[in-house]
Amino acid sequence: MNYESLYELAKTWTKEAGENLRKSVQETIEVEFKTSASDLVTKKDREIEQYYATKINQHYPDHFILGEEGTVQNQEYNFAEEKVWVIDPIDGTTNFVNQKMNFAISVAFYDKGEPVMGIIYDPIKDELFHALKGKGTYLNDEKISPLQEVTMAEAMISVNSLWTIPNEKVDEKKLYPIIENARGVRYIGSAALEIAWIAVGRIDAYIDFRLSPWDIGAGIILIKELGGEATTLMGNEINMTNTSTTLFSRPGLASEIRQYFN
Amino acid sequence: MNYESLYELAKTWTKEAGENLRKSVQETIEVEFKTSASDLVTKKDREIEQYYATKINQHYPDHFILGEEGTVQNQEYNFAEEKVWVIDPIDGTTNFVNQKMNFAISVAFYDKGEPVMGIIYDPIKDELFHALKGKGTYLNDEKISPLQEVTMAEAMISVNSLWTIPNEKVDEKKLYPIIENARGVRYIGSAALEIAWIAVGRIDAYIDFRLSPWDIGAGIILIKELGGEATTLMGNEINMTNTSTTLFSRPGLASEIRQYFN
Repeated sequence: MNYESLYELAKTWTKEAGENLRKSVQETIEVEFKTSASDLVTKKDREIEQYYATKINQHYPDHFILGEEGTVQNQEYNFAEEKVWVIDPIDGTTNFVNQKMNFAISVAFYDKGEPVMGIIYDPIKDELFHALKGKGTYLNDEKISPLQEVTMAEAMISVNSLWTIPNEKVDEKKLYPIIENARGVRYIGSAALEIAWIAVGRIDAYIDFRLSPWDIGAGIILIKELGGEATTLMGNEINMTNTSTTLFSRPGLASEIRQYFN
Repeated sequence: MNYESLYELAKTWTKEAGENLRKSVQETIEVEFKTSASDLVTKKDREIEQYYATKINQHYPDHFILGEEGTVQNQEYNFAEEKVWVIDPIDGTTNFVNQKMNFAISVAFYDKGEPVMGIIYDPIKDELFHALKGKGTYLNDEKISPLQEVTMAEAMISVNSLWTIPNEKVDEKKLYPIIENARGVRYIGSAALEIAWIAVGRIDAYIDFRLSPWDIGAGIILIKELGGEATTLMGNEINMTNTSTTLFSRPGLASEIRQYFN
């Protein structure tokens, strides 16, 4: 199939969806809660996901959709054998609600399990990060240079403080040397943006312990196209049908980080 | 003395200094290290501080300057009895170097120990937060509404991960319930910006354990003018001649946070 035209369509749709979100932060945002008081969803999450579903069904009726909000209830399908769009309509919904910035749309396309294209769009900054397999990663119209190595002492690490205190996913003590030795630790609150920021060098590595496919579907190809690492914490390929640990990073730094978890 | 004209001059100088920094992120930034590999300083920090010193000496030759880089070596003076400018030329130097965004200029004026005016400028976003005592707090030309109360479950807390792991300043365990109960924890990496973001509701409280007067000199008046809290962690007035613990917050939330440290 023609990936180039799919890529162009996806960028056009994403700019349009972003325009919708950019306008909506001026209005009152109604919030609902999913699993807990810190797991928010808004009408806009569902509206944007439905927008993509309509467009995709119109242009690619045989494609499947894996979206955070589950707007589209697919029949059973095998991710490794089908053409699948992986969509987070608003990654960082809490920021969308509380900050009215620092959220993103994340859209990726996978063909038989292989990442083909990814887009992460910050509509407030108007920063469209995008990549098509083999063609490099771009920020808006500018091609991003391949990622270079960096030492831990120069590195900015992104990690949620939730993992630095006792929790069910990781022994928090394993994070201590990273926090102590890095140049700085930051946390934006949008997985898609932490990853997009690695692409442009604002962050050097991002560690997480419970991400879903839609959080990272686009980020994986953005980083791989730049020679960076996008794996599970232990260096394995990320399984796109489940939640997983994740380590996104410049080359080199990932292996140093991994040592602390052995 | 005429505080209004001082306030107007300070805003004009700050916009000009910010323009300098906005241009400089396009260039290569040379870095030096102060006390450690994560304590950075650049030529720009010194240049901007010197710029203010020149302007202040020209217009207010009898004023003192308390600046992060110590560009001006004052004679001994008593902060509580003099007119003092408190300046951080680049708050968030690490972000300035690594991210080329998320840093700020922080400038405040204190008369006999009392905060008179404060300015925090994010030159990349072109967001000028400013306050003159008794006249309210503004973002650019727009007056900001007084801060309302918020519950911990709705709150975004800003805290550096360094304090959530064993450290010399605080028992990290005391932070656990805050991190667990808040809607989210974030960290930008610029004290001035964490505070400015409270003013506009992007963050609800910011906790730190080792801030210097120049980090918070402007933030204190920005938050007080909005009815928020700007104190030490224990609720005392911040001593502007020393480092201290700090708690900036919407009203109400501060007392809930303080309970965890009793």
